Amino acid sequence: MAAEPIPTEPSLDDDPAFSLHRGGKLEMRSSIPVRNAEDLSLAYTPGVARVCTAIADNPELAHDYTWTSKVVAVVTDGTAVLGLGDIGPAASMPVMEGKSLLFKEFAGVDSVPIALNCTDVDEIVDTVIRMAPSFGGINLEDISAPRCFEIEDRLRAALDIPVFHDDQHGTAIVTLAALKNAARLVGKDLSELRAVVAGAGASGIAVSKILINAGIGDIALSDSKGLIYEGRDGLNPIKREIATITNRSRLEGSTEEALGGADVFIGLSGSTVRESCVATMSEDAIVFALSNPTPEVHPEVARRHARVVATGRSDFPNQINNVLAFPGIFRGALDVRAHTITEGMKLAAADALAAIVGDDLSADYVIPNPFDERVAPAVTEAVAAQARREGVARA
Amino acid sequence: MAAEPIPTEPSLDDDPAFSLHRGGKLEMRSSIPVRNAEDLSLAYTPGVARVCTAIADNPELAHDYTWTSKVVAVVTDGTAVLGLGDIGPAASMPVMEGKSLLFKEFAGVDSVPIALNCTDVDEIVDTVIRMAPSFGGINLEDISAPRCFEIEDRLRAALDIPVFHDDQHGTAIVTLAALKNAARLVGKDLSELRAVVAGAGASGIAVSKILINAGIGDIALSDSKGLIYEGRDGLNPIKREIATITNRSRLEGSTEEALGGADVFIGLSGSTVRESCVATMSEDAIVFALSNPTPEVHPEVARRHARVVATGRSDFPNQINNVLAFPGIFRGALDVRAHTITEGMKLAAADALAAIVGDDLSADYVIPNPFDERVAPAVTEAVAAQARREGVARA
Repeated sequence: MAAEPIPTEPSLDDDPAFSLHRGGKLEMRSSIPVRNAEDLSLAYTPGVARVCTAIADNPELAHDYTWTSKVVAVVTDGTAVLGLGDIGPAASMPVMEGKSLLFKEFAGVDSVPIALNCTDVDEIVDTVIRMAPSFGGINLEDISAPRCFEIEDRLRAALDIPVFHDDQHGTAIVTLAALKNAARLVGKDLSELRAVVAGAGASGIAVSKILINAGIGDIALSDSKGLIYEGRDGLNPIKREIATITNRSRLEGSTEEALGGADVFIGLSGSTVRESCVATMSEDAIVFALSNPTPEVHPEVARRHARVVATGRSDFPNQINNVLAFPGIFRGALDVRAHTITEGMKLAAADALAAIVGDDLSADYVIPNPFDERVAPAVTEAVAAQARREGVARA
Repeated sequence: MAAEPIPTEPSLDDDPAFSLHRGGKLEMRSSIPVRNAEDLSLAYTPGVARVCTAIADNPELAHDYTWTSKVVAVVTDGTAVLGLGDIGPAASMPVMEGKSLLFKEFAGVDSVPIALNCTDVDEIVDTVIRMAPSFGGINLEDISAPRCFEIEDRLRAALDIPVFHDDQHGTAIVTLAALKNAARLVGKDLSELRAVVAGAGASGIAVSKILINAGIGDIALSDSKGLIYEGRDGLNPIKREIATITNRSRLEGSTEEALGGADVFIGLSGSTVRESCVATMSEDAIVFALSNPTPEVHPEVARRHARVVATGRSDFPNQINNVLAFPGIFRGALDVRAHTITEGMKLAAADALAAIVGDDLSADYVIPNPFDERVAPAVTEAVAAQARREGVARA
């Protein structure tokens, strides 16, 4: 008599996302051979002492003879992870490991995920400064607004290596690149465009700032209380500052109301926008509904009224994906040992990214595909060249 | 007319230690494939969100689905690097990278070098605690005494992952293993031995403590002011504590004076011991002159009067090398997810290490060679088994 099969428990690993993650996604490797005592006597004692002594005498040599100048710390406190919010450092690690993996796969950048179990601004800043001798760059990730702004500003001031909050600037660079191409498609100049940005968190603020630096006509931001204008009650310092350089017509009211006659909508809010309101936008409207997984307006709905539609999703045309920017940004900055990432370097990255689309520009192709192999080298080269032009490169 | 050859500048890279170190010794790699959008959608968004959410709901899952439980932070402040002293974090990095490389090559342990630019005990402790969610273990390295003791004690109390100061315990474990075999060779029991330890820094204190725990007869430590005894003026708290459990005969005076009739000398001081004083030791004396690169007494000189001689150097017999211990210690602790490394686990590691020598025991072979492939598996197994026996394993 055959034994009855033992019923198997359903396992998390039945989900391929879990089976892929088992044991983590990263490993550390030696980049040199250690086959015998002689190799060891050079890589470790006694040979290593000569290298240490030389660096102690001339700290600049650390760049050539350690891995520090090629490795980026991916630092989070787990407070704003994807769309999941404040899930804490342990639960944020799969995203941080994923980021490290993307750095490596897309631009050969080595990086180490560091999830911190503190959320106080002073504590995060102090901790990153203390560990900075181990790294050639700091990629801040998934830290909630408004703390992320102060943390980045203070680290940029304190450190002589690139500090880059990807949720802000990665999104901003890719959005600008896509918007430049969208404007070219519809035959408008950036300076003629009036944009509405829903969301005044990390990405909304950064997108607005880069669009202003790139010369957009006007831009109005909204938060959960509606449009942000100078003098509105209860604005935090970041919003107070952005109010002085945006919303020149001093519009009040809701995001949806502001869309009437607007050329561009950029959604970074997780909110929704009704079709009837998209319909009030100008001719040849541009809609970037970037919230994930649910865009502010479904792209097929938006397309009825807008000439160009982009989302954050891979299953629709024109995916605004940070991976188009951050690997090449850091690769370029590290390659020339830039001591910072300037606004000019971000704008150069956006231009390089937009240029890849070239003559293939169409309503469904305003931004390259993340797997386009031209992307990282083009961004790298543009960022490195701009760093040299601005005199922030050390190599 | 032939052009004259252009004279070439002498280059640091003419030294093979420098050419080997160019660009550093480590790289971070993805341990999973990312070939296309589908892989990316599992390793990163949107698939990764399911893994993050599961960990947020059940933090224990971080051990299975992130790399944190397999990766060790190699943490230093650069204050006591090799024999070079306080050379700072940047100059310490080649040693920390070397340590990471040894972890990987000898026991497959992933690790990340973290050199801190702070030396205050509170700051180091706070920093390591804050980054701890990113790691499965902390290997403290080249932190000067007496701060290293307090830092390790406080981190052990605060964290539920292994914390191990290798300069203390790695040296202690390998020294104990070698001494056990040396005692066996000369036919004495550990409990009959009277030892003199020159040096009351990190390794001197730790060696003394493990020898006491292993049951040595008596042991006297000395520092730069001579032998340490209860009531000596100006002892720091660590030395005051060690004075209560060592030097039962309350010897005063110099290290050399104490050697008269002693069975064992262990040098961890960087000082020197004259041949005439070694000659005053007991019959079948055991001399471990472990300072690097210059042993306290030349091993060939010591050999005229001692039955067994060991050094820290690879070019003499019986090299006391930490690499015999730390890779297997962490491999074993991580494999069973031990929340700490106990004294019992250290003693078990020493026993496993000593046992490898077995019947091949001789005056020139009291400790295995670092490249003996039996070492790391034996230490790993002993440490894991002891962790289970003591109930500190979580897997």
